[in-house]
Amino acid sequence: MTTHGSVPLPVVDAWWRAANYLSVGQIYLLDNALLREPLTPADIKPRLLGHWGTTPALNLVWAHLNKLIVERSSNVVYIAGPGHGGPGVVANAWLDGTYSELFHHVPRDGEGMQKLFRQFSFPGGIPSHAAPETPGSINEGGELGYSLVHAYGAVLDNPSLITACVIGDGEAETATLATSWHLNKFLNPVSDGAVLPILNLNGYKIANPTILARIPESELTALFTGYGYSPRIVSGGFDGEDPMLVHERFQAALAEAFDDIEAIQRAARVDGVTERPAWPMIVLRTPKGWTGPKVVDGLPVENTWRAHQVPLSNVRDNPEHLAQLEEWLRGYRPEELFDDQGRPVEFLDGDQPVGDLRMSANPNANGGLLLRSLSLPPLAPHAVDVSRGRGAVVEPTRILGRWLRDLISENPDNFRIFGPDEVASNRLDDVYDVTNKAWQGSTLPTDEHLAHEGRVIEMLSENLAQGLLEGYLLTGRHGLFTSYEAFIHIIDSMFNQYAKWLESSAHVEWRRPVSSFTYLLSSHVWRQDHNGFSHQDPGFLDHVVNKKASVVRVYLPPDANTLLVTAEHCLASRDYVNVIVAGKQPTATLLSLDEARAHGARGVSVWEWAGTEKPGEEPDVVVACAGDIPTVEAMAAVQIVKREIPDLSVRFINVVDLMRLQDSTEHPHGLAADDFDALFTRDKPVIFAFHGYPSLVHRLTYRRTNHSNIHVRGFKEMGTTTTPFDMLMLNDLDRFRIVMDIVHRVPRLRVSYAGLSQRMDDERYAHRAYTREHGEDAPDVVGSAGLPFADPSSQPGGVDDTGDDNAR
Amino acid sequence: MTTHGSVPLPVVDAWWRAANYLSVGQIYLLDNALLREPLTPADIKPRLLGHWGTTPALNLVWAHLNKLIVERSSNVVYIAGPGHGGPGVVANAWLDGTYSELFHHVPRDGEGMQKLFRQFSFPGGIPSHAAPETPGSINEGGELGYSLVHAYGAVLDNPSLITACVIGDGEAETATLATSWHLNKFLNPVSDGAVLPILNLNGYKIANPTILARIPESELTALFTGYGYSPRIVSGGFDGEDPMLVHERFQAALAEAFDDIEAIQRAARVDGVTERPAWPMIVLRTPKGWTGPKVVDGLPVENTWRAHQVPLSNVRDNPEHLAQLEEWLRGYRPEELFDDQGRPVEFLDGDQPVGDLRMSANPNANGGLLLRSLSLPPLAPHAVDVSRGRGAVVEPTRILGRWLRDLISENPDNFRIFGPDEVASNRLDDVYDVTNKAWQGSTLPTDEHLAHEGRVIEMLSENLAQGLLEGYLLTGRHGLFTSYEAFIHIIDSMFNQYAKWLESSAHVEWRRPVSSFTYLLSSHVWRQDHNGFSHQDPGFLDHVVNKKASVVRVYLPPDANTLLVTAEHCLASRDYVNVIVAGKQPTATLLSLDEARAHGARGVSVWEWAGTEKPGEEPDVVVACAGDIPTVEAMAAVQIVKREIPDLSVRFINVVDLMRLQDSTEHPHGLAADDFDALFTRDKPVIFAFHGYPSLVHRLTYRRTNHSNIHVRGFKEMGTTTTPFDMLMLNDLDRFRIVMDIVHRVPRLRVSYAGLSQRMDDERYAHRAYTREHGEDAPDVVGSAGLPFADPSSQPGGVDDTGDDNAR
Repeated sequence: MTTHGSVPLPVVDAWWRAANYLSVGQIYLLDNALLREPLTPADIKPRLLGHWGTTPALNLVWAHLNKLIVERSSNVVYIAGPGHGGPGVVANAWLDGTYSELFHHVPRDGEGMQKLFRQFSFPGGIPSHAAPETPGSINEGGELGYSLVHAYGAVLDNPSLITACVIGDGEAETATLATSWHLNKFLNPVSDGAVLPILNLNGYKIANPTILARIPESELTALFTGYGYSPRIVSGGFDGEDPMLVHERFQAALAEAFDDIEAIQRAARVDGVTERPAWPMIVLRTPKGWTGPKVVDGLPVENTWRAHQVPLSNVRDNPEHLAQLEEWLRGYRPEELFDDQGRPVEFLDGDQPVGDLRMSANPNANGGLLLRSLSLPPLAPHAVDVSRGRGAVVEPTRILGRWLRDLISENPDNFRIFGPDEVASNRLDDVYDVTNKAWQGSTLPTDEHLAHEGRVIEMLSENLAQGLLEGYLLTGRHGLFTSYEAFIHIIDSMFNQYAKWLESSAHVEWRRPVSSFTYLLSSHVWRQDHNGFSHQDPGFLDHVVNKKASVVRVYLPPDANTLLVTAEHCLASRDYVNVIVAGKQPTATLLSLDEARAHGARGVSVWEWAGTEKPGEEPDVVVACAGDIPTVEAMAAVQIVKREIPDLSVRFINVVDLMRLQDSTEHPHGLAADDFDALFTRDKPVIFAFHGYPSLVHRLTYRRTNHSNIHVRGFKEMGTTTTPFDMLMLNDLDRFRIVMDIVHRVPRLRVSYAGLSQRMDDERYAHRAYTREHGEDAPDVVGSAGLPFADPSSQPGGVDDTGDDNAR
Repeated sequence: MTTHGSVPLPVVDAWWRAANYLSVGQIYLLDNALLREPLTPADIKPRLLGHWGTTPALNLVWAHLNKLIVERSSNVVYIAGPGHGGPGVVANAWLDGTYSELFHHVPRDGEGMQKLFRQFSFPGGIPSHAAPETPGSINEGGELGYSLVHAYGAVLDNPSLITACVIGDGEAETATLATSWHLNKFLNPVSDGAVLPILNLNGYKIANPTILARIPESELTALFTGYGYSPRIVSGGFDGEDPMLVHERFQAALAEAFDDIEAIQRAARVDGVTERPAWPMIVLRTPKGWTGPKVVDGLPVENTWRAHQVPLSNVRDNPEHLAQLEEWLRGYRPEELFDDQGRPVEFLDGDQPVGDLRMSANPNANGGLLLRSLSLPPLAPHAVDVSRGRGAVVEPTRILGRWLRDLISENPDNFRIFGPDEVASNRLDDVYDVTNKAWQGSTLPTDEHLAHEGRVIEMLSENLAQGLLEGYLLTGRHGLFTSYEAFIHIIDSMFNQYAKWLESSAHVEWRRPVSSFTYLLSSHVWRQDHNGFSHQDPGFLDHVVNKKASVVRVYLPPDANTLLVTAEHCLASRDYVNVIVAGKQPTATLLSLDEARAHGARGVSVWEWAGTEKPGEEPDVVVACAGDIPTVEAMAAVQIVKREIPDLSVRFINVVDLMRLQDSTEHPHGLAADDFDALFTRDKPVIFAFHGYPSLVHRLTYRRTNHSNIHVRGFKEMGTTTTPFDMLMLNDLDRFRIVMDIVHRVPRLRVSYAGLSQRMDDERYAHRAYTREHGEDAPDVVGSAGLPFADPSSQPGGVDDTGDDNAR
């Protein structure tokens, strides 16, 4: 333990009072910030917004951490689980000077304080929560539950960092938080930093007591011991207890926790101890709204749920409330804390962290400052060779896994893969040639690829995979989240919040770009025939496109080579959420690497080789597709058409970058109107075979000239346990149905080719009957059958694994 | 404890072997079900699908529960958390006879066994998981994490019921499961039944060990003690241990747990003990894939992750695997278990539960059998009086809360409200006049409305509110889930799974209709200006409409009276998911109760009194709206138009039942094409003010004649902490912008009323400036200002509470 002299507790107390004063001021005051005059109704904001209840504890923890940081030069990021206590976090950032450095218009003096107060939750001002606009913050406190997983994500591969994570007892009831405690099983004390959870039991959520505040202390201790921690319980501030006594107890607990962390890290790093340690955690029991009004209008407020938001309402019109507010504010003795100019007094300043050690200024909380670009290995060694003809059958995600293996080798300390136990199932397991799954628990001889250090973290919780990667990215690193497509909806709301974080960050000048969040969704709707209906849902794409076009990107690579190109592009990008949907089942490789690069760059291309159009003439019909399986069906349909209607001119279009479908005025990747019309024609029927729900294509092409002529086939919520081709037939996305659509939509074919349409329908019946008799698909619709390639077995490359392996 | 003679353990073992045999048979066998001939490749299914790993433990627990049910006549519902072990659950249902009773084509004999095997995971057959098609099941095992919360939901107000809930150690890592353990804090031993969690530590998930299987037993015990349980750990079956020894240990633990439950209930019900009890739970540690192949191709399988799905692959083509399969099957000694006709032998039958006590046949798992319709109290006493004129300002959800209060009084034991601590925030707190919040923890004098019995359950987890209501509904009761609109996305995936459950159930003849799942979403996007961007998201509606039209209903009541009518309709319905979005902030009442009834019945109506059209003439423009706030803005816009363009004929349409917008061929509530055209015209511009993302209206009206002339304003992802009217301006949904839209879209106005458009734009600037200066909205855009009513203060009814109360 390094010491730099001890900070006296009265300084800690002074900081705490100052932060509390500034917090209350933000909630209430429009004017008279320093209270140099008696408070009048005109000094009060017209709308009183904000969350006081959690704020004094947030400030308390901050003040005490400052002391330890000064004494030990500790590298600490502060995570406010109850980030809705925004005034507190902002107050501390202003006190330590960061706020004024980043926002010059809010100086660290009386004038600045005035502005600080006014802007809070004010139109044109700042949000009421710890938000992207808040220095030092990487956790929004609006949707509760993600503080602890963010804290763990932040310290991975960050051996000197401690995240001090304040968790509210309301938040502790959420699902994600409840399982986040188990993340200590993945933390490597050698190469990762430390998380110090500080569970603040203030007893109440919005309108109810909290569970953890009302269980016996024995259960509380057992629970956190059971979660694998070494808990310390500090309680204080009740019944008017002198805060100085609480300061003593809490500081002791905090210092001991820091000692424990140092000891654990020393044991692992120096002494080679490999047993999973019991990391410290603190339970801090304080009154909700501590130091606020005890009783308002005859009802108890401090230490009840009534302290949750604004303890004194209607202050402009209620003289008694106004008087209570003034008494409350003056109780912090602002005259001792701020000088004549409204600057924090010198004794406060002298004993506080400076520079990057200030928690508001810690560069880990503005991770783009620390971002090192990934070294991207060449794709070529992994590209599937199609030089002797298209069609080599491979598992696309397995090909990607080989490139990811190289990527991990070249970026051993700032790239990770997170997943809910689906990395191998999604065929990325070649990465285990060069890395392992992080695991600090006990191991058995039969275990494979488990080690203290590993680039892969797998826990059966999509929420944790999401939250870990968020924390990892926001602290300046790179990563990938791979999941089954259907279950990614589990993190819909976390995606929302992260997308909103990125949307807001774009307007915060001092936030540096971070690496994009990239999803690789596999085991998708068209290949979950074995797991059935519960596993069949392609709706995440619909969810994603509700967020601002500036942050969302959606890719549906049709084959392995395009997947490689797409992944490379996504992992090099910044400040986006990228969604890649790609199959893991064997499928034909359609493009060479060079073609895939060109296709990826364009996002949407005509594949002349897959269509039948004559150069220089408008086609009779456009067959478009997006997604690997729809692409195969669309191609197979064109083969039938070629044979049956030899004079029909079919343009074949594949879409890999879905947002190209939108207009360029709506999405940065959108095609300009003329370009879209040139591709999709202004008036020819377009049959669109789509991976997801058809309405999404309609939505994206809504403004297009030819919109009313775009006919989409996709998933229409028909599913069960059956065969792959039966799934396509159930949803009218099979090749036969696409041929029927072509006949139906091209006016000149409707009558003359009614017979073909009938034959196609007969084919469907026959295939369904075959499937029900044999329990598998007829050979003529399996894999590359029906595609314009030679026998795939004659192709280079070939399938790696076609066993019965349909994991999970 | 009631005893009916003891069932010998060899009978339990025989049942277990029989269930295991039937499970393996389902995964592998197409023919030769009774193994009366040597196994040949032709007997094997072409595609080997299913999950073996978890199945033997599922069967073990079932067999042992049967013994206790026989001995004690216990009323037990079995919940298979690892419901992907579908073959096990199906096997037990066939063994106990339920399967054949419900599916006559699968008799309980050799022929039936053959069909049972063939149909599993076979095209046209049954799903691979415990699904709606599975007798006795109320929990799908595809998306893991919801077993325990379903178990708790099922036993609420079900004092005789025990749910035996098997939880996989993979599932135990999920977020929802991790917080579900805390539900024991809400279970009233007097009026609720009991949940017996049986955590099966088989050690592995898909490809990894599980966390809970690899922590020391001391931590395991501490964890569940901390969660408030009394844990018992049973371990066995490892290293070839004789199953009979395991049977003894497990049966003892199970019997003790049942004894504990009886003792706890007796203490509470007879002796009046009120302390929260430590309910029993069991940790059952068994090898994954126990009794399956130990080694395959030289690699260990039993007791490793390799046993997860199909331990022996490619059996048709691999003679060694075929031989292993035959040995495995014969190891269960089927000749002792099934007679010459393939019926379970008599000694098995004699000692098993009969009738409704069979877990497959327990009526609680087919809740519609037990469903009692709600007694719906009259709405009239709560209707807002508009007899002296429209416009009375009320908080709509508060009005609803008063009706819910009556509803609870009239239905004291089969209706509940679930929420994540937002019941009071959403203004439903009048229900506390007649009920309380269920709470078994300690209480303080300052607490309000906490009691052992209460119709409201609030825990800060949307997942738990969702799961509890699912369990409650599926066992034949009624309820309501109220949440903030933005955070309902947390349960997107649970909604998916529940909607899929309903979609599938519709095709299962013997499943009786259950009460609908009704969401009341309040604190919605347009009134979260104080909480900011994280709280602003109306996208749940988009998510919901991806599911089948047969199960989803969406309502946007514009005022309090329409909300009453809508809620009454939803709570009386069956087998739907209803989503109601309604405001909690004071807003004008627009319709009388009778008008609201008529409006609700129609779902969409022309409001002549709010428009300016001349009878018998087509209007110049249609102003349509859906949602309370958009309705106010649309009406205010029409008032401006009336003043400024007196000769413009405006039709005013309000949509309360959103699915009316879809075509009648697409949704049962859809308007027929002609009816839609009659309302929205075939060619006049429609300006649509919408609550949610505009694309949803486009999506629903996609096939309408006048589609290209429908112009939608709604939320476009612009949000922050600001004022209500500023939120509308940010998203171009304010009255001034709607007027500008009208001018822009009606060709004859474009030039002649360019000045009006400019003035409207000036108004917007002026209002933004006002807001930024004053921190609140200008009086002329607050509440009913601008609506065609007299001064609202002169209205009957009036506001209940307009303080600064913007909870959370």
